[in-house]
Amino acid sequence: MQQDCFVAVHGGAGILSRDSEGLVKQALANACKTALATLQIRNDVNAALAATEEAIVVLENDPCLNAGYGSNLTFAGTVECDAAIMTSEPGDYGSIGAVSGITNPIRLARAVLDHARIPDPLGRVPPMMLVSEGATSFASSVPQPPIAIVPVDSLITLRARQQWAKWKARLDQAEAGPVDSTCPTTAEDQMQDTVGAITCDRAGRMAAGVSSGGLLLKHPGRIGEAAMYGAGCWASQTNRQPHTEASGDSSNNFTISGRSTGEDIVRAMLARSIARALAYDQAETFSGEVDVHEALSEVFVNLFLKLSMARGELNPSAGVILLDRGDADNPRSVRLWCAFTTPSMSIAYASSRHPSPKVKILRRPTRTNTESPVYITAITLS
Amino acid sequence: MQQDCFVAVHGGAGILSRDSEGLVKQALANACKTALATLQIRNDVNAALAATEEAIVVLENDPCLNAGYGSNLTFAGTVECDAAIMTSEPGDYGSIGAVSGITNPIRLARAVLDHARIPDPLGRVPPMMLVSEGATSFASSVPQPPIAIVPVDSLITLRARQQWAKWKARLDQAEAGPVDSTCPTTAEDQMQDTVGAITCDRAGRMAAGVSSGGLLLKHPGRIGEAAMYGAGCWASQTNRQPHTEASGDSSNNFTISGRSTGEDIVRAMLARSIARALAYDQAETFSGEVDVHEALSEVFVNLFLKLSMARGELNPSAGVILLDRGDADNPRSVRLWCAFTTPSMSIAYASSRHPSPKVKILRRPTRTNTESPVYITAITLS
Repeated sequence: MQQDCFVAVHGGAGILSRDSEGLVKQALANACKTALATLQIRNDVNAALAATEEAIVVLENDPCLNAGYGSNLTFAGTVECDAAIMTSEPGDYGSIGAVSGITNPIRLARAVLDHARIPDPLGRVPPMMLVSEGATSFASSVPQPPIAIVPVDSLITLRARQQWAKWKARLDQAEAGPVDSTCPTTAEDQMQDTVGAITCDRAGRMAAGVSSGGLLLKHPGRIGEAAMYGAGCWASQTNRQPHTEASGDSSNNFTISGRSTGEDIVRAMLARSIARALAYDQAETFSGEVDVHEALSEVFVNLFLKLSMARGELNPSAGVILLDRGDADNPRSVRLWCAFTTPSMSIAYASSRHPSPKVKILRRPTRTNTESPVYITAITLS
Repeated sequence: MQQDCFVAVHGGAGILSRDSEGLVKQALANACKTALATLQIRNDVNAALAATEEAIVVLENDPCLNAGYGSNLTFAGTVECDAAIMTSEPGDYGSIGAVSGITNPIRLARAVLDHARIPDPLGRVPPMMLVSEGATSFASSVPQPPIAIVPVDSLITLRARQQWAKWKARLDQAEAGPVDSTCPTTAEDQMQDTVGAITCDRAGRMAAGVSSGGLLLKHPGRIGEAAMYGAGCWASQTNRQPHTEASGDSSNNFTISGRSTGEDIVRAMLARSIARALAYDQAETFSGEVDVHEALSEVFVNLFLKLSMARGELNPSAGVILLDRGDADNPRSVRLWCAFTTPSMSIAYASSRHPSPKVKILRRPTRTNTESPVYITAITLS
């Protein structure tokens, strides 16, 4: 039976200024529309994968987000991008890291995933992650569709250059003497980070992807959570309850996004740890029904925050969106979960039943001492 | 109380020919001796870290092993190395991937780890993984001790060049028409892969590391399990039983090694999954005592092999060594575990009590239908 299809995107967890709110909202709405159009036209096994890719292409092309065109600049003043894409088929994953001169890094990650599906005549295991020059040379060898390779400077925006100059000067100053304590750190000032998308097609297949320009003033060659398996995105299909004719396969699927502490997201293997927590809950505790809120809270607090703070990180930043299908009371329900530790997170979502994208800048209330460090909310999509 | 110190190294899981057995044994014995000497001279917090690094430097410098000098060549005929190092301090990790012209990749991974311990004046999060040209430029900026950067061709041995020519010709032939089914695939013919070392100092601190030249004919820019967090090595200290004055902190620590299916090792997050299985066993099932054999078997069979075979991999290859301290009956005992799916795995070990290195080429018996796909054994070191 054909079901509804769904898409959710995010523009990163971070501190979204009121000035750029309108632009970010528009970009997220456009990404939702493009992905939903793809899901509605296509009916093949790669529909969710293609929709996720197309959503992220929109976000990469928009200069107001830190991915593709408009990415943060490295310490050397260059653009180096990370991206990954995954489907709910076991091990179906491709990622690229530290690539320059690729207009849409997510298309290159997709090409790595596609390439890994082709058996090799000598039995060589195909790569799941390619970086730097090697990734660019792979891009030029992809036959169809071609991957756009452009001059490396063409992905730099004026705004990115200005931000770089400002923070480079501040770094030089800091290295010469003590920093003015009233200055914000880069972490408090830079724009939202990693963008991401999750989609679910009419047959219940899912895909998740992320793309990022990485940290402002990062060391060239630095690989962040957007390129690392198990860290920046995950797509899985778990049999969280018995398959029924009415519900189709039950499954869950999510993507995550980090802002200033991508390394801590890698250390916590955030995306995969959440996947495991959800599966574990099912197997061990909830006998068929998962408490998603509890699983998210558990992983954020006991793994991500604990590990980050043990390393002296004062404000570990991460945000996650998660599409969750089905619960015991209502097997056809689909919920979009959002969890983040930052002041805000920008998201958008749409479905075949409600095709007009809803855009939300989720902002947590001003902190109090008793408040949880993680803000978790859920939106019922159907 | 000062305890004994331990070192274990491996030269990879694979098919070790009788011809190269002598050379590999000598390299492993040398690595053990060097690491043990470091552990016996030093008494500081970085003793285990330094000993692991020095053991791997010996293995990288030996042309008979696939790491550093003598690495497998990429499709383009170049050497590109991956390496990682980790200690039992939470999140203390550094890795590098796809680097050329670095004599000892493990020294560069160590430099990334050291750099991440220094607070940044602007609060930038330091990288945990650097790749390619960016990693090389970082190498040239490391003040003390300097990292040796050499002409990229100087790490190529005659043997590596011959292997490359042989398999490149076979690949060209295969791409032109059907392969002769009597030809072995590259996976069956190439030398042992990733090398690794684990050490434990007199205070119970542990470190693990890996280094690899990667797959023969790999795509340039390919990142394998030796550079990926959670895949190629892990070092952890778990309180598997109550701390007692006599036993010191109980802890376990291990490193793993993959041969031809590094991507599958990444997908299974093999090293971290074993760490979790051990911790999980403690918390949930064994109330203080872990069945290491069961944990290794569980992760190899239900995660690594299942996932690899679901992707059509006929002979998924991986090998692990694991230093495990303490069990309920004998809290001062230390065991070296070894688990692998390949025909052989070469290991060596030594301790302050038995300083003369023991070298073993573990070979599994010829397969029968009823045999387990994973060969697991343990050696009591004290």
